[in-house]
Amino acid sequence: MKKIWIVYLLLIGFFLLYVLDYRSQSHLNEQWKTAGLRGEIDEKYVMVTFQMGIDYWKSSLKGFEDAAQALNVSVEYRGSTQRDVHEQITVLEQIIAKKPAGIAISAIHPADLTETIGKAVDAGIPVVLFDSDAPGSKAYSFLGTNNYSAGIKAAHQMAELTNGRGQVAVVTTPNQQNHQDRTDGFLATIQKDYPEMKVVAVKNGKGDQIYSRQSAEEILRDYPDIAGIFATEANGGIGVAEAVREIGGSQRPKIISFDTDKGTLDLVKSGDISATMAQGTWNMGYWSLQFLFSLGHDLNTAQIPGTPPVPEQVDTGITVVTRQNVDDYYAK
Amino acid sequence: MKKIWIVYLLLIGFFLLYVLDYRSQSHLNEQWKTAGLRGEIDEKYVMVTFQMGIDYWKSSLKGFEDAAQALNVSVEYRGSTQRDVHEQITVLEQIIAKKPAGIAISAIHPADLTETIGKAVDAGIPVVLFDSDAPGSKAYSFLGTNNYSAGIKAAHQMAELTNGRGQVAVVTTPNQQNHQDRTDGFLATIQKDYPEMKVVAVKNGKGDQIYSRQSAEEILRDYPDIAGIFATEANGGIGVAEAVREIGGSQRPKIISFDTDKGTLDLVKSGDISATMAQGTWNMGYWSLQFLFSLGHDLNTAQIPGTPPVPEQVDTGITVVTRQNVDDYYAK
Repeated sequence: MKKIWIVYLLLIGFFLLYVLDYRSQSHLNEQWKTAGLRGEIDEKYVMVTFQMGIDYWKSSLKGFEDAAQALNVSVEYRGSTQRDVHEQITVLEQIIAKKPAGIAISAIHPADLTETIGKAVDAGIPVVLFDSDAPGSKAYSFLGTNNYSAGIKAAHQMAELTNGRGQVAVVTTPNQQNHQDRTDGFLATIQKDYPEMKVVAVKNGKGDQIYSRQSAEEILRDYPDIAGIFATEANGGIGVAEAVREIGGSQRPKIISFDTDKGTLDLVKSGDISATMAQGTWNMGYWSLQFLFSLGHDLNTAQIPGTPPVPEQVDTGITVVTRQNVDDYYAK
Repeated sequence: MKKIWIVYLLLIGFFLLYVLDYRSQSHLNEQWKTAGLRGEIDEKYVMVTFQMGIDYWKSSLKGFEDAAQALNVSVEYRGSTQRDVHEQITVLEQIIAKKPAGIAISAIHPADLTETIGKAVDAGIPVVLFDSDAPGSKAYSFLGTNNYSAGIKAAHQMAELTNGRGQVAVVTTPNQQNHQDRTDGFLATIQKDYPEMKVVAVKNGKGDQIYSRQSAEEILRDYPDIAGIFATEANGGIGVAEAVREIGGSQRPKIISFDTDKGTLDLVKSGDISATMAQGTWNMGYWSLQFLFSLGHDLNTAQIPGTPPVPEQVDTGITVVTRQNVDDYYAK
C-alpha cells in the first residue's frame, strides 16, 4: 500500500511539473510575439563600405551594431579594402549570393553601384544607402548628412575665419556624390553671400592624404595670398594641413576639414585645422538597421504599391567642431 | 510512517514546483532585458495636431499607434478642434503639465508654437515635429514631406497636364510653413523650367473649403483662360473643384490637389481633380514615435553635447496619384 501511494504521488508531482513547465513556455512565446520589436539571431544584416579599415566607419558601425543588439539580430561588416569601385561591386555581389536579411551600403560612386543594388532589391533583399548616396538606384532610402547644407555651413564658417575676405580653395573628391554636394553648397554660398571672397581653385585630392597634400602645395604656389582651404574629407584635411605647415608662409591659410577621426581632432586641438564638420554617423548606422528591419519584417501596415515603405531621405545633421568643443569628440 | 512519507513527498513536490516556477520567471525577465526594443505600458506618448477631427491625421496616428504597439508603450491623441493657434498652445500646455514620455506635434504656425515647445524640452520631455515644421524651435527632429520638393513635383505634373503652356494659379495657406514651401517650390519650378507658363495668382484659401472655393471663383473670373490651379491642401482642392464645376466654362482648368482623404480621391476618380499628391503620413507617425522612444530611453550611445541625438530631418517622400492608381489609395 505504502509503495502504491508513493508511485501515485510521484506521478501526480511529475504531471504538475509538466503542466507548469508547458504553461510557462507558452506564456513566454505569447509574450514575445507581442512584446517589443525583436528579430531572430540568425537574421543577418550587412554593412558595406569602402576603404573599410579607416576610423571613419567605426561610429556608423557602432550604431548599426547597437540597433542589432537592441533588436536581437546579427550584423556583418564588409567592404572594399581600397577606394576601388570594382572591388566594392565584387564584395556586394558576394553578399547578395548569401541572401542576407538586409544591406546598408555607402556607395563609392553615385552611378556605378546602381545595377548591383538593383540586383539585390530584385532578389528581395532590402537595401538602404548611408553616408554616400547613389541617387538613381532602387535602394529604399538614403540616410546621411545633407551634404549640400554641410557645404553651406562650411562656407559660413570659412567667412567667419577669414572675416569674409580673400581667395579660398577647395580640395575634394569630385566623383563621389557627397563630396560633390559639399563643394556645390560651399561654392554657391561664397558666391551668393560673400562678394569679397572668391573661390580660385577646386582640386581633386582623391580622398587621399598624399594627393591632397600635392593639391594643396599647388594651390599655395599658385595663390600665395590664399586665405582659406576647405577639405571636404578627412584624409584630405590632414594632407592640406601638412602642406600648409611646410610652405604656408607667414600668413597661414585657415583650414576647414571634415569628420572627427583622431588625426583630424589632434590638428584641430593644435590649431593647424581651424574647424572640422562632425557628421551624425552613429545615427546613420543605427537608423539604417532600423529601416532594414522594418522593411524585412513588413512593418509598414499602410503600404501602398509605388509609395516609399520607409522614409526616402534622412538628414542626420552636421555640427561644427573647433578648438572650443574638440575635447567632446575624442572617443571615450 | 505512511503519513510522514506523504508529507515529505508533498513538501519536496512543492519545493520543486517553486524552484521551477522561479527559474522560468527569472529566465523570462532576463530575456526581456536584452531581447527586443520594449518600453513600459504606462509610458505615454502624445500626438498633437490641429483640426484634430479631420481624416488627414488618421494615417499618421495609425503609424504612431503601430509603433507604440510594437514597442509596448501607450499613446494619446490630442489637438485643437479648430485651426486655432491659441487653442493648440493651450492643449500643448495641458499636456506638458502631465509630463508624458514624449510629444509629436504638427505645428499650426511656424513661429507661434516655438516658446511652448521650448518649455516642453526644458522640462525634459522629448519633442519631435511632424508634418508641419516650426524651424526655430527646440524640437529634436522634423519628420514630414520635403514640401519644397513636393511643390517641384506638382509643378512638373501641372506642366504635363497643360502641355507646358498657359496661366496657372495657386490656392494655399500662406502662414503655415509646409504650404508656403509647397508654393515656393511650385513657383520656382514654373519660372525656371516652363517659360510658356505663368503663375498669375496666389490666393489664401485658409485651409478651408468655402474660402478656397471663393478664391477659385475670383481666379476664374479674373483669368477666364486659366489652364490650371494647384491647391496645396485637401479642403482647398475640394473647394476649387466645386468652383470649377460651377463656373469653369467649356475649357475647364486642370486641378492638382494634395493628400488622399476620401473626398479628394472621389474627385480624382471622377476626373474633377487631375492629380493629387500623396504624403508618407504613416511613416511620419511611426518614426516620430520611434524617435521619441529613442530620445526617452537615451538609446544613442555616441551622444556628444550639442549634436543631434536623433536625425534632424526626415523626408517621408511624395507620390503622384492620378485616375490610373487612385484605387490603391482608398482605405482597405
